Amino acid sequence: MDERVHEHAEVLVDWSARVEAGDDVVLSVAEGTHDLAVAVAEELGDRGANLLTTYDSDEVARAYLRAHDGGFSTGEHELTMVENADVYLRLGGGRNTSALADVPSTARQKYATATAELREARMATDWVSTVHPTRSLAQQAGMAYEEYRNFAYSAILRDWEALAGEMAGMKELLDSGSEVRIEKERTDLTMSVEGRTAVNSAASVSYDSHNLPSGEVFTAPHATEGEVFFDVPMTINGKRLRDVSLTFEGGEVVDFSAGANEGELETILDTDDGARRSGELGIGMNRGIDRFTDNILFDEKMGDTIHLALGRAYDACLPDGEAGNASAVHVDLITDMSEGVMEIDGEVVQRNGVFRWEEGFER
Amino acid sequence: MDERVHEHAEVLVDWSARVEAGDDVVLSVAEGTHDLAVAVAEELGDRGANLLTTYDSDEVARAYLRAHDGGFSTGEHELTMVENADVYLRLGGGRNTSALADVPSTARQKYATATAELREARMATDWVSTVHPTRSLAQQAGMAYEEYRNFAYSAILRDWEALAGEMAGMKELLDSGSEVRIEKERTDLTMSVEGRTAVNSAASVSYDSHNLPSGEVFTAPHATEGEVFFDVPMTINGKRLRDVSLTFEGGEVVDFSAGANEGELETILDTDDGARRSGELGIGMNRGIDRFTDNILFDEKMGDTIHLALGRAYDACLPDGEAGNASAVHVDLITDMSEGVMEIDGEVVQRNGVFRWEEGFER
Repeated sequence: MDERVHEHAEVLVDWSARVEAGDDVVLSVAEGTHDLAVAVAEELGDRGANLLTTYDSDEVARAYLRAHDGGFSTGEHELTMVENADVYLRLGGGRNTSALADVPSTARQKYATATAELREARMATDWVSTVHPTRSLAQQAGMAYEEYRNFAYSAILRDWEALAGEMAGMKELLDSGSEVRIEKERTDLTMSVEGRTAVNSAASVSYDSHNLPSGEVFTAPHATEGEVFFDVPMTINGKRLRDVSLTFEGGEVVDFSAGANEGELETILDTDDGARRSGELGIGMNRGIDRFTDNILFDEKMGDTIHLALGRAYDACLPDGEAGNASAVHVDLITDMSEGVMEIDGEVVQRNGVFRWEEGFER
Repeated sequence: MDERVHEHAEVLVDWSARVEAGDDVVLSVAEGTHDLAVAVAEELGDRGANLLTTYDSDEVARAYLRAHDGGFSTGEHELTMVENADVYLRLGGGRNTSALADVPSTARQKYATATAELREARMATDWVSTVHPTRSLAQQAGMAYEEYRNFAYSAILRDWEALAGEMAGMKELLDSGSEVRIEKERTDLTMSVEGRTAVNSAASVSYDSHNLPSGEVFTAPHATEGEVFFDVPMTINGKRLRDVSLTFEGGEVVDFSAGANEGELETILDTDDGARRSGELGIGMNRGIDRFTDNILFDEKMGDTIHLALGRAYDACLPDGEAGNASAVHVDLITDMSEGVMEIDGEVVQRNGVFRWEEGFER
């Protein structure tokens, strides 16, 4: 077994999930993640955790969803399992990213609605979602298998403690600032971050961060004004969006265009009122990610990118008791900042992808 | 997918487990059983059951057990999952029957002891254990993959209703009889079945039968007397026992020998007092099984065999409130009856592998 699989398991169990002896752990294993599951089981045994392994197979889900009449309900067996779990580790990575392609979206929606309680219970655990590099994910990224493994482990096996420290500085700038401005090709956008709290997403439940890899600082902006161009392609609901342009006025999208699948963009914007407002501003800071691979878990963390989400804001960014932007959707769109500028209250924080505190920053 | 995989799934869900709409089902999936899991998920979706799939990987278990210090405990998450399950379907069939070979037996025993509550909770569900024919099982049986699949499906895809009817007749003979006698090479054995109730093991929870395939009628004999020779090899605790001979006096084994691994046989007999008494007499009646494959699930059901177990008796065979033979072990030993005679109260029920009601029976 690739030694990095063991390192991945160790980071997941110790840094990300902070597993302790006696913890009840659910290990959710996708079809292509057997090797990582074995390595994680070894770490969990060593820590003295109680292990229950579930099989999260897209092909099993497809067969079940297609055969069902749609009157889904939440099984008490699954609900009590999750409610009694301390830690929920999700190992993603299947054998075919299109394995659910012919499941009617109505069936998926009905299932998601009927099992909302399950998702909430999962979110109440110390959950972490990670990805085992499979051939299927390599294919989606347009990369050779070995090349993709190198890419994925470079993103996952960071010095997380050091990155968390660097991101704490970024969080401080956002928390103490009031206006963020982004300027680049076809882009001049301002947002207020006044009164909002940024999250230092350092790939650990101790930082309220539940993805491995992570490496972004995000907040919940409001009063967004101006134009923004997203040059990084994104697959949303199976549709590939390209070259999305949005114009904000009074905090709302008033004009939009896309180089491909503009209809899908329109559907998203028309979901509800909140879908036209920005719910998240995220600043990618993971320098281990050096290219886009059509996988949001990696793309939005990349070191010289910024993403903006249409729709729902995260509670962690809002003052206690205050509701942020409400919406049924949360759709991330990414822009490449390798030729652009980000300012906070008029001061340049990042120029052409280089942060102020990094070598090579041009004052 | 082999059409027989779908037929297997249908028999499992309908005939064996009697799954109904709204049932909370745990589907336990071994490493090599993905295809059967997909087919079963389809049946469960169609029946409107609530599906939770667990991953029963020997390699995951090995890593966990070897790394753990041995202070195991039962996870509340797993216990509540099983306690809330209506049905527990176990799909056996790994990729290496020796996958747990280097797990110290003390670790296995400690884990089994610490999680006894889990096993009891599973036994309280409508549980069924079946096997998906894998290459690994074909190898263990010394058969080609396609040959083994044909063998397995011939055993699994029976007319269970008809077989249940035939076995009901056998049960009647045992229930109304008082003494069973077996005679063959190196064998002349009598047992009392007075006051005992036979189980018609027809591969369905409706018959208190939890294996698919099944196809045996068994009871709990006592006062066993005489000699018996087991010519079918059996792998017990990883040791291959051959040509076992036992001599019973006053219901207890007073002499024994084995053609191979006699020491293992001695260890079994010395476990406790009950290990020297017979806990089960089973009569194989599944004519779909035409050879021995070193897998007890199949071997003991074969149509012209009888097996005797040393150790624990099943409660279902005993009068209410009466304790049967108590023991920590239950070790099945099989004898080929294709050249032999079984009598009940002096009347021949089977001669040379042919039952009295079958064509070719010699009076």
